[in-house]
Formats: sequence, C-alpha cells, structure tokens
Amino acid sequence: MSLNKIEIAQQFRLLQDHICGELERIDGKATFREDLWDRKEGGGGRTRIIRHGGVIEKGGVAFSEVYGPVSEMMKKQLGLDGNEFFATGVSIVLHPGNPFVPIIHMNVRYFELDSGVYWFGGGIDLTPHYIDESQAALFHKQLKQTCDKYDGSFYPKFKSWADDYFFNQHRDETRGIGGIFFDHLSASEKAGKEDLFSLCIDLGKLFPLIYEEQVDFGKNKPFGERELLWRNLRRGRYVEFNLVYDRGTKFGLLSGGRTESILMSLPEMAAWEYDFHVEENSPESKTLSLLHKGKIWTT
Amino acid sequence: MSLNKIEIAQQFRLLQDHICGELERIDGKATFREDLWDRKEGGGGRTRIIRHGGVIEKGGVAFSEVYGPVSEMMKKQLGLDGNEFFATGVSIVLHPGNPFVPIIHMNVRYFELDSGVYWFGGGIDLTPHYIDESQAALFHKQLKQTCDKYDGSFYPKFKSWADDYFFNQHRDETRGIGGIFFDHLSASEKAGKEDLFSLCIDLGKLFPLIYEEQVDFGKNKPFGERELLWRNLRRGRYVEFNLVYDRGTKFGLLSGGRTESILMSLPEMAAWEYDFHVEENSPESKTLSLLHKGKIWTT
Repeated sequence: MSLNKIEIAQQFRLLQDHICGELERIDGKATFREDLWDRKEGGGGRTRIIRHGGVIEKGGVAFSEVYGPVSEMMKKQLGLDGNEFFATGVSIVLHPGNPFVPIIHMNVRYFELDSGVYWFGGGIDLTPHYIDESQAALFHKQLKQTCDKYDGSFYPKFKSWADDYFFNQHRDETRGIGGIFFDHLSASEKAGKEDLFSLCIDLGKLFPLIYEEQVDFGKNKPFGERELLWRNLRRGRYVEFNLVYDRGTKFGLLSGGRTESILMSLPEMAAWEYDFHVEENSPESKTLSLLHKGKIWTT
Repeated sequence: MSLNKIEIAQQFRLLQDHICGELERIDGKATFREDLWDRKEGGGGRTRIIRHGGVIEKGGVAFSEVYGPVSEMMKKQLGLDGNEFFATGVSIVLHPGNPFVPIIHMNVRYFELDSGVYWFGGGIDLTPHYIDESQAALFHKQLKQTCDKYDGSFYPKFKSWADDYFFNQHRDETRGIGGIFFDHLSASEKAGKEDLFSLCIDLGKLFPLIYEEQVDFGKNKPFGERELLWRNLRRGRYVEFNLVYDRGTKFGLLSGGRTESILMSLPEMAAWEYDFHVEENSPESKTLSLLHKGKIWTT
C-alpha cells in the first residue's frame, strides 16, 4: 500500500495502541481511560489518560486526525499556503510520582496541504527532576542510534533543535536534558517520505523502551518531603514552558482545539516558591547546573 | 508640588507601604519580606512577599519604577512612539489558604514617554474559589462608588473591560467575578491628570478595605479535602490565565523583566485534573455557572 495520509493516520493509531499497552505494563497498576472526540470542522481524536498508577501519577497518550479548510488564523499564524489541510499525530506527556523518575514527552506528527506540500515533525525529550548523567547519556545514545539509521546529520541537528526549543528563556534554563526535536521535515536525497515516516514509527516504538529504562532506574528510590517539593517546583517550570512557549499548546488553545486534550500535558499538581534557592553541592544544585544548552551527552 | 513622574512614583511607593501594613494587620500572622532590585537599563523595584500567613498562603505586593530608552521590542510589541520611557506602578496578587477566601489582584500604573504622551492603567479583580453572590455584589458596589466619584461612565466601561480582559478563552470562562480594568487612560474633559492619579490612589486605599471584607466573610469557614482540591483546580485556571493571556506577565517575561517579581502572581501550589466535572447542584457548579461575561452585580 502506498504511503498516503490515511495509511499514516492508521499507523499512528496503531502506534498509540502499542504505546498504551506498553505503558500499562510498565506502570503495573493503572490502565488508560479513553475519550473519543470529534472536531466540528473535520476529524477528531482519541485521548487516553492514565492516573494514579504504580509509576505514572498523571499521563496522556493522544492520537488525533484532523482536517478541513485552512482557516484565516492558520494562514496568518502558520503561514500555510493551501485551501485544505490534513494533520495527524501521537502526543504523549507522562508525569511520574517518584521524583527520581523523569517526566517524558514524545510527539510524532504528519501534516499535508492539498497543494501537495507535506512534512513530518516530532521529538522526544526528557525532564528529570534529578539528573543522573549516565541515564541522560543512555537516553541520548538511544535517540542517536535510531536517528543514525536514517541520516547521520539528523541527531546533531535535532538535538540542537531540542536544546533551542525546550528552553525557558525567562529562567535561562532548558526544560530538561533535551532530546530531539524536528519540524517541517520533508524528503531529501538521503531520506525519502517513507524513511521519514519510518523514523517517526521507530521513535514511537523506541519510546516505551526508553521510558522503561528510566522508570526502572528511579522507581524504587526512596524520597521524602524535600524531593517532593523539588519535583513540584520542577513541574512548575514544566507548566511555565508549556503555557508560555510551547507552540502546539498555544496554537491549540487559541485556535479552538480541544482544551482537555491539549492540557493533558499539565501535571496533577505543581508548585511555585518565590526566589527558591537550592543548597550548594546538593543534588538539586547539580541538576540546575546541567540545565543549559549545548551539553554533549553522547561520545 | 506639581504632578510629575517623580511625585507619582513616590506616592505609589507610599501606597505599597500602606497596603503592606494593612495586609499584615489583616493577615494577623505573617509579615512581608522585601527584595530590592535594580534594572540594568534604568530604575528598579521593591518586591514584597508574604507567605504562610494566618490568611494569605502566598502573596506579593510589588512596586517598580523603571525607565530608559524605548527598545525595538517595546516599539514593535507596544507600538510606542518615543525615545525614552518612564513606568511606575504597584501590583498585587494574594492567594489565601482558606478556599472560602477569594484570590485578589490589584494593579495601578503610570506610563509616560519623552514625547509628552502619558497614561494610567490598572484595576482590581476578584477570583473567589466559591462565589458568594452578596459578597460579589458588595465588591462591585465598592468599586463603582470609587469610580463614580470621578466619572459616571468609568465603572460600566471598566467593568466590561475587566470581563473581556480576565477571560480564559480556551475554557470559555471568566477568571473570577471580574471587577474593573482600564488602560491607556489620559485626561478628558471630566477627569484631568490629577483626577486619574487620584483614582489610582483611591483604588489602592480601597484595596485593603475590600479585601478585609472578603477575608472576614470566609476566613473562619470550615473546609476539607473537597474544597482544597477545588481551590487548587481554580488556582490552575489562574495560572493558565496569567501564563497564556496576561499582557503584563507575557511582556515582562519576554522582555527580560525580573522573573521572580513577575511570577510572584503564581500560587504556592496548583492542580489540574483531566476533564474534571463538578457535581450537579453543588457549590462548585454554582460557581462555574457564574463565571461568564456581562453579569451585572450592582443594581
């Protein structure tokens, strides 16, 4: 079967199924609840939420497939040159309970216009409340290996894109240890449309493997009030990024997307403390010292 | 003494002192901590924070007086036509602990350009976690009485402005019961520059009186887990408004303002629950039903 938008959407739907199954296994306690929704102008989605699990305090794995006329707002804000669009993707954010398990985000998406223009976008990034450098290196190595299968230039380019994108400018800190981010990716000499799609599917399949490693590393580590406060403060920064900078969130909210699906990325609970300072030479200060752009995690 | 920018800033500084003194009396337990800060390009501020009080869980009363060259960003984003600007104001957000005491926000500010153009802006709005209609009516009546001293058209105009401004579009709900909001206000036939300044000072002095009424009404009401969850969810909406829509917050963060002072408006802790539904005929559903624009609270 040729790779058309229907096939891509169907594979993304199956990817959502696969990931949800794997996450339920990794969590070991909670299961996903599903909400189906329709978009008035065309298409809809399946939003799946997991709560109060063995590992995941709150998480969402969303599939959507939306289409219809390109609105004036989309033309203006996204610079789209076409009459009809089609967009499909899978989007994930997981907030674990244990502060030693990182927050993780993944997204793969496909967009096309009736003019024939299309592109893929996506990425995976990790936000540890406490950064363990060997776990961070492992995470980046796994991403690099997958990217390298397609184009040796992808990982360095996408890694630096993630550093720039997942950045809280007003805090002068990255959201976490980054990962990869790409957008407006279409066929090149090295990687055709089928390859780019295959990269998205590979990343989707890599996602539960990656997260399982991170979960296994942290899930049994003991913690107390101090670590919970720090986790909640880091979640506050996550909320700041998503509401102030994240393009998908902002565009979704302002263009009349399904609010509950868009904001499933927010944690169950977050904290802010005025002018919070970490102790010198503490695990918290070490984490802060690593939240900057341009750090090379792979060797 | 003529009403120039130095005098206005000085009166705003005294207003901050007055309000902090009154709030400490109303709170009855905690006192403000002060941070002085300088702005590299000119001016600075006094940020005062109160925490873990008898009434106020987290609150800030900030004074600032900043000036300097009009940057390219200010020209572009604010459409400012001048070379040098001067801005001073007092800004307040208080998050109480008891869910039956409302969140309150106040701001008064003065802006001028070397071209001679100036304006005042400001407002007070109330965000009850649980709306009591008689308390809401009292709040609006107090604002109307103060506005009416200056211009009978102010209250209806400013009230409707607040409805439009303090609105979470993606939730299709107002942030709270509104209040008044005004911006770019300069002298008219009815109200000269001195009058507008006097309105700002009057609102600043009204603020602790207004809040004391709301605090006294709610501070001894008993509450449990249910009310705390609801309070935290409403705080989540407050965070959404401030980070997604609030012009002062967005401009401040993107223009390199002092992040801790700007984000003092965020609560100590906030919550999000996917697709939360209130019980029918509950106090929570009654509150939700009142969070829409255009409700007339004064008769």
